[in-house]
Amino acid sequence: MDRPLNLGLAGIGTVGASVARILTEKQEHFSKMTGRPIEIKAVSARDRNRDRGVDLSGVDWFDDPVRLAQEADIDLFVELIGGADGPALESVKAALGRGIPVVTANKALLAHHGVSLARLAQRKNVTILFEAAVAGGIPIIKTMREALRGNTVSRVYGILNGTCNYMLTRMEREGVAFEDVLREAQALGYAEADPTFDIGGFDAAHKLAILTSLAFGTEIDLASIFIEGISEISLDDIKAAAELGYRIKLLAVAQRTDSGIEQRVHPTMIPAGSALAQVDGVTNAVAVDTDLLGSILIAGPGAGGNATASAVLSDIIDAANGVYVSTFTVVPQSLTAYKRARMRAHEGGYYIRLRVADEVGAFASIARRMAENQISLESIVQRKASDDDGSVAPIILITHETTEAAVRKALEAVSRDGHLRGEPQTIRIETLA
Amino acid sequence: MDRPLNLGLAGIGTVGASVARILTEKQEHFSKMTGRPIEIKAVSARDRNRDRGVDLSGVDWFDDPVRLAQEADIDLFVELIGGADGPALESVKAALGRGIPVVTANKALLAHHGVSLARLAQRKNVTILFEAAVAGGIPIIKTMREALRGNTVSRVYGILNGTCNYMLTRMEREGVAFEDVLREAQALGYAEADPTFDIGGFDAAHKLAILTSLAFGTEIDLASIFIEGISEISLDDIKAAAELGYRIKLLAVAQRTDSGIEQRVHPTMIPAGSALAQVDGVTNAVAVDTDLLGSILIAGPGAGGNATASAVLSDIIDAANGVYVSTFTVVPQSLTAYKRARMRAHEGGYYIRLRVADEVGAFASIARRMAENQISLESIVQRKASDDDGSVAPIILITHETTEAAVRKALEAVSRDGHLRGEPQTIRIETLA
Repeated sequence: MDRPLNLGLAGIGTVGASVARILTEKQEHFSKMTGRPIEIKAVSARDRNRDRGVDLSGVDWFDDPVRLAQEADIDLFVELIGGADGPALESVKAALGRGIPVVTANKALLAHHGVSLARLAQRKNVTILFEAAVAGGIPIIKTMREALRGNTVSRVYGILNGTCNYMLTRMEREGVAFEDVLREAQALGYAEADPTFDIGGFDAAHKLAILTSLAFGTEIDLASIFIEGISEISLDDIKAAAELGYRIKLLAVAQRTDSGIEQRVHPTMIPAGSALAQVDGVTNAVAVDTDLLGSILIAGPGAGGNATASAVLSDIIDAANGVYVSTFTVVPQSLTAYKRARMRAHEGGYYIRLRVADEVGAFASIARRMAENQISLESIVQRKASDDDGSVAPIILITHETTEAAVRKALEAVSRDGHLRGEPQTIRIETLA
Repeated sequence: MDRPLNLGLAGIGTVGASVARILTEKQEHFSKMTGRPIEIKAVSARDRNRDRGVDLSGVDWFDDPVRLAQEADIDLFVELIGGADGPALESVKAALGRGIPVVTANKALLAHHGVSLARLAQRKNVTILFEAAVAGGIPIIKTMREALRGNTVSRVYGILNGTCNYMLTRMEREGVAFEDVLREAQALGYAEADPTFDIGGFDAAHKLAILTSLAFGTEIDLASIFIEGISEISLDDIKAAAELGYRIKLLAVAQRTDSGIEQRVHPTMIPAGSALAQVDGVTNAVAVDTDLLGSILIAGPGAGGNATASAVLSDIIDAANGVYVSTFTVVPQSLTAYKRARMRAHEGGYYIRLRVADEVGAFASIARRMAENQISLESIVQRKASDDDGSVAPIILITHETTEAAVRKALEAVSRDGHLRGEPQTIRIETLA
């Protein structure tokens, strides 16, 4: 039997309590895996007296996680505090600075400081493990950092926010409008009181920033991500998508193009018959397109105490086994600067829904604007909108592959022509491998 | 820069040649990953002069892979020879015996000798890596051995044979009969001249035997797997499944039950709206149900030179990084004996297709036999079979959850009653998580 792995646990919320409880309850299970006992040596949390369903009486308590990271007699520091800066950042830096490996579930920390932390870890010859930071229980970090290492990645994309996916699924299945589904999600605890971080696409963007770095060996650049949330998606869009053979998902996509790397989060139409389109409710999924492998898809729970704890525990056992992997796949000195591909250069098909005044020449003018911008149309559907009173003709256009710039220019011209009632709706169509 | 990893490669067929070529072409890519060059030091293959698209002129050649494993100056032995016994087994034993870690893509070797090889590896303190042995490029071995280590698995199941899945997909999409699809698959190289190993379910069974051991920490028991191939699946079954909201896939399933562990490979009806049901063509997929995580699904290419090479390369880099993992998740001394759950005790829903003589009392007698065996029916459909001439009434029964024993007893009684024309067809229904 090897020497125990002494673990310092900072942050004992839902995930931290799950981790502590499972390590205690499954002690025998874990020693079968490693031959090395894992012991919680020190913890840090604000409230010592809260019942967390696990006995932490023999454990060293620290009020300050930074002091825990600096002083505790530990072999591994597990950061479950959260937040991009403050005690999370300071404690992780302190642990790495002492040459102690770190396990973290903190996507914001990595999206903002991942590269500098990776360099610090490299200097100290220790590893940062963060399976739980992206897509909860889905082993996408291990897959990208280890299983795909022979591959050159061309695109990584997925459903990375369970709140949005739950809401879109409910809208599609039950025909419930966005605002009502949001209230329902908030009541169920799937959405926060201020839901902006989720439904605005920012949570998915943080996760995408990390996946981009793993995929392309580039420095993290959260600020360059094009972000569009789901709040403008209407039941009309969802119904039209279904009729056209698509489903609407909030996708996060990072893709290598001729001009750089595209990073984008936006509502996306994907073929209804694809496996990704069946990923419903709070489930997450990530797909990776590569040169050798072709494409793989991993789907599973993206959140929840136990699912996230499962990812943290896998990292803890890797640390117990002395696994060393470079933080973002390649060694930090090989990380290249992120070269942004402008969103205007994005190429793809588009769904465009217009509410057009019912007057002579309106449609001819729209058709002309599309042609002027070299946009060719795959289909044109005239549908009755749910709030249609006869004065407007709702028109849906599906374009062949074109560019974001062409679509924006065409729609600006159409708007100037004065035939539209309300803003045009555009949803990008993603071609899956 | 660390000392290079010297690699011995035994077997340079499609996969071996891909591995050698990619290691050469992507030398810079790999050194970014590991900081350690990977060099092919020795190879073994029958024909030295065949053009394999890669320059192996500076490499030590061995006619006998066992001698390579015994004598070459290598840090890692990569076995891509194939076959459960003979040179594959002898060379792997020789390498492990010298304390050299092994990477292999050989499912038959592991399904037959995995446990004794794991014990030998453990004694020598080296690891056996075999990502490519199950489901080609899908990282299911890494996921089960590493990413799910905190979890207790209740079931692992999947589409593990691309030939069968390709054939079932073609039958469903194009309405082509089994025999015609088989000829087509043989012409395309998706099926062997003697297709028994694939369409009889034996290939999937070999892979399942390995997954079972990883899932439950039990010794491998290939002989206990219940195996039924796809050759009895007719277009009538496929059409009926579609009408009832199912698709038919050859599933391999290992499941913990009250009486032991069930291992079974058989055509299976799964809900048409599930992500697994969208896994078409030669694509493979594996799902794992666990206590902490819930369920995850991984889908991707199950075969092909580059996809399989991708898995081998991931193992090679793990070996270069000194990763040590117990062969079947738990340390070999903790592997427990496999306790077989009898197939007769299997519980689930059943699709039963009967061709019944068009005579008075026939259906009443069938209904009575079902009731006598406590089988309750979810639906009863009378369909016109494609070869129906009016003298038989084709009847399809979907049962509620019952047991294999009850279904067999009921169908034996129905057969004895003399109303059937031809053998009854039964297809098990799998409930997905």
